[in-house]
Amino acid sequence: MTTFPTSLGTSTEDEIRLLGQDLTADLMGKVGFGELAFWLVALRRPTPSETRVFEAVLVALADHGFTPTAIAARLTYLSAPDSLQGALAAGLLGGGSRFLGVTEDCGMYLHQALLDHELPADDAGWDELALKVVTETRAAGKYVPGLGHPVHKVQDPRTPVLIGIAAEEGLLGPHLQLFQAIGRVHEQVLGRKLPLNGAGVCGAALADLGLPVELLRGFALLARAAGLLGQLAEERRRPIGMDAYLTVDRNAVYVDPTETQDQS
Amino acid sequence: MTTFPTSLGTSTEDEIRLLGQDLTADLMGKVGFGELAFWLVALRRPTPSETRVFEAVLVALADHGFTPTAIAARLTYLSAPDSLQGALAAGLLGGGSRFLGVTEDCGMYLHQALLDHELPADDAGWDELALKVVTETRAAGKYVPGLGHPVHKVQDPRTPVLIGIAAEEGLLGPHLQLFQAIGRVHEQVLGRKLPLNGAGVCGAALADLGLPVELLRGFALLARAAGLLGQLAEERRRPIGMDAYLTVDRNAVYVDPTETQDQS
Amino acid sequence: MTTFPTSLGTSTEDEIRLLGQDLTADLMGKVGFGELAFWLVALRRPTPSETRVFEAVLVALADHGFTPTAIAARLTYLSAPDSLQGALAAGLLGGGSRFLGVTEDCGMYLHQALLDHELPADDAGWDELALKVVTETRAAGKYVPGLGHPVHKVQDPRTPVLIGIAAEEGLLGPHLQLFQAIGRVHEQVLGRKLPLNGAGVCGAALADLGLPVELLRGFALLARAAGLLGQLAEERRRPIGMDAYLTVDRNAVYVDPTETQDQS
Amino acid sequence: MTTFPTSLGTSTEDEIRLLGQDLTADLMGKVGFGELAFWLVALRRPTPSETRVFEAVLVALADHGFTPTAIAARLTYLSAPDSLQGALAAGLLGGGSRFLGVTEDCGMYLHQALLDHELPADDAGWDELALKVVTETRAAGKYVPGLGHPVHKVQDPRTPVLIGIAAEEGLLGPHLQLFQAIGRVHEQVLGRKLPLNGAGVCGAALADLGLPVELLRGFALLARAAGLLGQLAEERRRPIGMDAYLTVDRNAVYVDPTETQDQS
Repeated sequence: MTTFPTSLGTSTEDEIRLLGQDLTADLMGKVGFGELAFWLVALRRPTPSETRVFEAVLVALADHGFTPTAIAARLTYLSAPDSLQGALAAGLLGGGSRFLGVTEDCGMYLHQALLDHELPADDAGWDELALKVVTETRAAGKYVPGLGHPVHKVQDPRTPVLIGIAAEEGLLGPHLQLFQAIGRVHEQVLGRKLPLNGAGVCGAALADLGLPVELLRGFALLARAAGLLGQLAEERRRPIGMDAYLTVDRNAVYVDPTETQDQS
Repeated sequence: MTTFPTSLGTSTEDEIRLLGQDLTADLMGKVGFGELAFWLVALRRPTPSETRVFEAVLVALADHGFTPTAIAARLTYLSAPDSLQGALAAGLLGGGSRFLGVTEDCGMYLHQALLDHELPADDAGWDELALKVVTETRAAGKYVPGLGHPVHKVQDPRTPVLIGIAAEEGLLGPHLQLFQAIGRVHEQVLGRKLPLNGAGVCGAALADLGLPVELLRGFALLARAAGLLGQLAEERRRPIGMDAYLTVDRNAVYVDPTETQDQS
Repeated sequence: MTTFPTSLGTSTEDEIRLLGQDLTADLMGKVGFGELAFWLVALRRPTPSETRVFEAVLVALADHGFTPTAIAARLTYLSAPDSLQGALAAGLLGGGSRFLGVTEDCGMYLHQALLDHELPADDAGWDELALKVVTETRAAGKYVPGLGHPVHKVQDPRTPVLIGIAAEEGLLGPHLQLFQAIGRVHEQVLGRKLPLNGAGVCGAALADLGLPVELLRGFALLARAAGLLGQLAEERRRPIGMDAYLTVDRNAVYVDPTETQDQS
Repeated sequence: MTTFPTSLGTSTEDEIRLLGQDLTADLMGKVGFGELAFWLVALRRPTPSETRVFEAVLVALADHGFTPTAIAARLTYLSAPDSLQGALAAGLLGGGSRFLGVTEDCGMYLHQALLDHELPADDAGWDELALKVVTETRAAGKYVPGLGHPVHKVQDPRTPVLIGIAAEEGLLGPHLQLFQAIGRVHEQVLGRKLPLNGAGVCGAALADLGLPVELLRGFALLARAAGLLGQLAEERRRPIGMDAYLTVDRNAVYVDPTETQDQS
């Protein structure tokens, strides 16, 4: 008989267990939601310091206003108001490589660099490592994730604040240190100064918390689920979906398809 | 020119605002994630008491082990491991009327009953109202949401605990009071004693927090997003998706379609 | 041991069976895609006449230009170009009650009316039935599905064409006849003349083909899957997603949240 | 004013246009659904020969029985029967790299090889090219897509049949020829004989039809949409979702989380 192992939720007639705890006696009213989300993935309860950094990341990533994903969620809600889950899912499906993937890409990038090298002993050592890593990335024709932002061209305000919170909590680990060093040295290689962006610093901070780097995108998605809920609540209260749709549809311009046949 | 009003996220080159607050100065490191999720929907910051009840609800709803939605998310991750957002979305799409909708249905049911009647002054009054409402529901051939559970046949352990937390925080409002009264009187109408279930009590508690009842399903989905992340982390660590798939596929039995042609 | 019955796909080392047929010997190259889609749901192969009507419906429903669902799919592709399946799924998730549900609603409405009454013998009989049904619907405070269109205010050009094709193929069944009768008599009850819309006539035609009325929305979704593929191909070739996003984002206007706190 | 160009659907009060055609006069009843799906992406109407090959591919890919995606769709429908679009979307979200991506991967692989080399003049030339390509792929530590199948260990029955249909229609182009040559020579490099699988030959055939290789996964998804509709129709008629869920849930075995803390 095939069995299915799990360390998450199980229940009997009079008890519900989750993560080896009694849900009602040990968790409800005693553990915060962010704490539980961390615990569910890492299989250990975060410390209060870890929780503070972790929730600061989720707060930073929750909502960025009228992003493509927020608009997609609102348009889906407009079309199918009977299915809130469908609108939320549609919004999360935009959480891919381009608009929401930087957090994961940056965490993985830093993680890989740290796996491949000895930990430096001081800031000079970090700068040396950062220089080596950025140079190699550039030589491979790839981008350094976490650099640059379309709106915050000089400094992303989230970056120093999150680093400050991590430092206050004694959680300024190797990923954040390498990220900071990249911020100091990249101009030497790339020829221009770019800000360390908020999505990137969030990835570095999550990686420093010991969360699995292959799942960092998942935390951005969790944060965004809260943001999308806010967007959908606002769409009920003060809808913009119909106007967004009509703005596109009424300004459609027909192009003869024979002029643009696919040539691939 | 069409404009698009919002009270959520906006940003300028050096500032990010969310809900009328400065994201980095006022929110990051200062507001918990659950607190922010509440705020994003209700447009007001919850009190510490409200936050405790709200997070207890999210914790109660986060994961119930191998539910259909958890299995669907794991099977999707098995098929498309390159798209964590797709696996998460697939899991949330099961958050509909049957397995995750009770929270919303129960909150709306209680809310409607309260809109239609004067608030009772004492327990006897609540029992009278509950009796009237359950009798009318039964007469209309409908179910009373929030009653009964396939596993917790006598008592759902979440129900007294959540009511206790709400009472401790001074937040035992009319929805929870009516729900409790339904628990006391429904046997007179339905002819058998059913437990008040956890999904139902969560809906009542969320409605007492003043959250919009049409969006209560959304909080169940947010909670479940955290649970699904845990399920997907476990699927990476100790996969069961392939076994779940093979258990079905290897025990497939072919049925001649001509014996079951659709007759609709 | 639990077994899992199916009449769909099964395979052995050297044969693949589908619907009781040998996939490679009996289906590939011999059955059209629309034919197979019909067969998969109805468990019988459609006749050539049925296939023509069925495919005319799918063609009618495939694409309506910049609908909210098409825009949502394009915005999702913009955000997550690595996941075509996510963009397609996001587009389909808008296939709910409002923009894509009329086909199903209309088919079910006509189906129910026919279950509840004797089949009329002539046009006068159909008009009488239609009058009764529309009157009852109006009295119940409900809408008659399939009536009216925001753009085609006098006549939806799809309606007479699809009815003509069904007539040519000898497939003008009771659902289409009742729908036509509704077109003739509704003005007497509703006080104004509305066109029979294309989504509605498609639902009537699908129901006349004997397809299960609870799944008619599924055919609209299948048709739309082809249309969304066209939209995503065009988004690659001549993108509009970024402009749609920026048009909303750049015209965002901030509203103080304290002025719009949720009062529910 | 931003405008939004499109060659797909547009409409006026009395006409609907699609792809530069009059939808009702030129397309409905005159164009098959597969034909239209091809046209929507390629912006040209396929010939009858192209349509036959194209539809044979869609038929081959429509349903493979109890795949992870089919089970995920059924479990989602079990949880949220009110949202057919959600169940369909959940099924499609499994259409990623592992179970449905081979079609696209194989088409792109062959396409790239053809871009990088002169077209051979005869079978010996094709074998030489195939040998070079497979050797290089192996040297780069990568897999050759389209080789091998878990069930059809010696020969995938779809492969010779689809090649035969393409040959009959005069559409055995360079992608299929290179794929066949890979079938002849790969044993010399890989040390064992593997079958050319059905997903791979479908990708080669679609690429030979001139469809954009970056979107080949989209056709697999369209085919699968029809198959999933069949699965959901069967789930209504003869459900297995509940049994699939209970088979997993009842055989859950609890594992202490402290034994498997994430170490990443």
